[in-house]
Amino acid sequence: MKIKVKEAESLVESILKKRGVENPSIIAKHFVEAELRGHYSHGLQRVIPLVKGIDLGTIRKTVQLTEIKREDNAVLYDANYSIGILVWHYLTESPKETLIAVRNSSHIGFLGYYTRRIAMRLGKPAIMIGNAEPAVVKPGTAKKIISTTPISIAIPCEKIVVLDMSLSPIARGKIIEAKRKGEKIPYGVTVNKDGEITTDPDEALQGGLLPIGGMKGFFLMITLELLVSFLTGSALATEVQGVLDTTKSPNKGEFMIILPRLQSDCHGLSVLKQFVEYLPGEHSDEMLKRDEIDIDEKLYNIFVKLEAEEQFNWTQNE
Amino acid sequence: MKIKVKEAESLVESILKKRGVENPSIIAKHFVEAELRGHYSHGLQRVIPLVKGIDLGTIRKTVQLTEIKREDNAVLYDANYSIGILVWHYLTESPKETLIAVRNSSHIGFLGYYTRRIAMRLGKPAIMIGNAEPAVVKPGTAKKIISTTPISIAIPCEKIVVLDMSLSPIARGKIIEAKRKGEKIPYGVTVNKDGEITTDPDEALQGGLLPIGGMKGFFLMITLELLVSFLTGSALATEVQGVLDTTKSPNKGEFMIILPRLQSDCHGLSVLKQFVEYLPGEHSDEMLKRDEIDIDEKLYNIFVKLEAEEQFNWTQNE
Repeated sequence: MKIKVKEAESLVESILKKRGVENPSIIAKHFVEAELRGHYSHGLQRVIPLVKGIDLGTIRKTVQLTEIKREDNAVLYDANYSIGILVWHYLTESPKETLIAVRNSSHIGFLGYYTRRIAMRLGKPAIMIGNAEPAVVKPGTAKKIISTTPISIAIPCEKIVVLDMSLSPIARGKIIEAKRKGEKIPYGVTVNKDGEITTDPDEALQGGLLPIGGMKGFFLMITLELLVSFLTGSALATEVQGVLDTTKSPNKGEFMIILPRLQSDCHGLSVLKQFVEYLPGEHSDEMLKRDEIDIDEKLYNIFVKLEAEEQFNWTQNE
Repeated sequence: MKIKVKEAESLVESILKKRGVENPSIIAKHFVEAELRGHYSHGLQRVIPLVKGIDLGTIRKTVQLTEIKREDNAVLYDANYSIGILVWHYLTESPKETLIAVRNSSHIGFLGYYTRRIAMRLGKPAIMIGNAEPAVVKPGTAKKIISTTPISIAIPCEKIVVLDMSLSPIARGKIIEAKRKGEKIPYGVTVNKDGEITTDPDEALQGGLLPIGGMKGFFLMITLELLVSFLTGSALATEVQGVLDTTKSPNKGEFMIILPRLQSDCHGLSVLKQFVEYLPGEHSDEMLKRDEIDIDEKLYNIFVKLEAEEQFNWTQNE
């Protein structure tokens, strides 16, 4: 079903407001923007685990940031299970640091939101990398070891270029979608419970995702996980919990590097434009202009219930 | 044929010394270390284009760095066609900045050398990214657009973890090797002159490499190229020249980000060790212990000639 952007925003805002969540409109707008930009895996469906965590007390309603360490021009915070979207929205308001690291916040939404914000507000490029629960296997095996390793890079040219992706070839949401539609998954991106490549969504859900680029991508991903954990003191790999499954509190981490405007040379945009139809972020900017979104009817009905009943019965209704 | 490490080093050093190159032993040791660590594409074979560039005057014998800009804790240099290995060896001696950007240096060897050096000397993690001549196509097309996008990340734990790779699934050198041995290339990593996937080395040499991870990898790579060019003011994509083909002066760029020791949490090493036999860099550290290297006889003979004749006839002998 289709609903107006404004309706989606106020529905989510109202669900959060009734639960005493700080600044609910920032969160509602974030999820709707993710949906509009086509980051469906980070869109409205993520309202459910967030509200569940709040109801269960694994996620805080109000932000509480503890500064753990400052060094040079960098800062590390413990978010004490605060809502990740609020934490990073505040931290990217007008940062003075060149590196910001956070651990123990809940799901932070889509990373491109924050790197684009830095590019817009400070006119500086930014790189952001995080981790989450394991979803990706080492090629040839079946055990999920590493997260899909989200990464975003924004470059402030006359048009802001924003890369926002994971390092797995497809999102878990795409497998669930293929299952619902009775379709096959593209060859070479998922494995079954024995670690063999499969195109069957049911088998893939029992196995896991492959990294992009085989063992090379795998090594890139574990290095990035290790870097996240090194800088933030977060859990990593199989230790991470509480991001999608919010019955537990989150223990992941992420960091943002804010780069200087040294040469600020954007002639590359026109060079690349000869070869690619869309630069990273361009397609997403166009999609943002819609005033309606497609929402799964089942998801919409849960939203309506969550809005009506402050004491939602999670074990019965999910 | 096999030669002793010491012999390889002094042969290369002598070739460079006879040409009046600054600090030849640093360069010789770098190429030999690349060879020992298994970075063959960045090893001894790279002596040839370097010496050729020096003989032709497209590469300077002595380092000349111009500081273009300082901002916050970052610095940008123009290397004025100085030897990249010397430039970055000097810049990573004891840097005070958190971002170092360079344009117009010649080939800088293997990036892991410099990130490892930062991890060892400063005890800080480092990320380094550069560009070079185009070698990788947009999937589905045949025109080489972007470089293989070398990237290195070092993390200073009790054992320093060093990732050092390109974002193409195989190096061009591997295709040439497959051709020599009459072997096929693995499926899905190269295309022919019509942009179709090929496993034939001859066809691949007329086409190009694919990025890792299809269009996702492609977008990651063009974003990194754009970032390099944005920060350094270098050429990018199809504009880049003079890196491997040194008949022209180099116009590429690269940058290093030096990260702080915030939490410096290395518990992740033991978590990851349950799942992977070698962490990034570990295998390369073991290979470094050899005291002999395998060198192509043809390459060795060119070295002997280069060492004997200061006026090597490049058009006749290459």
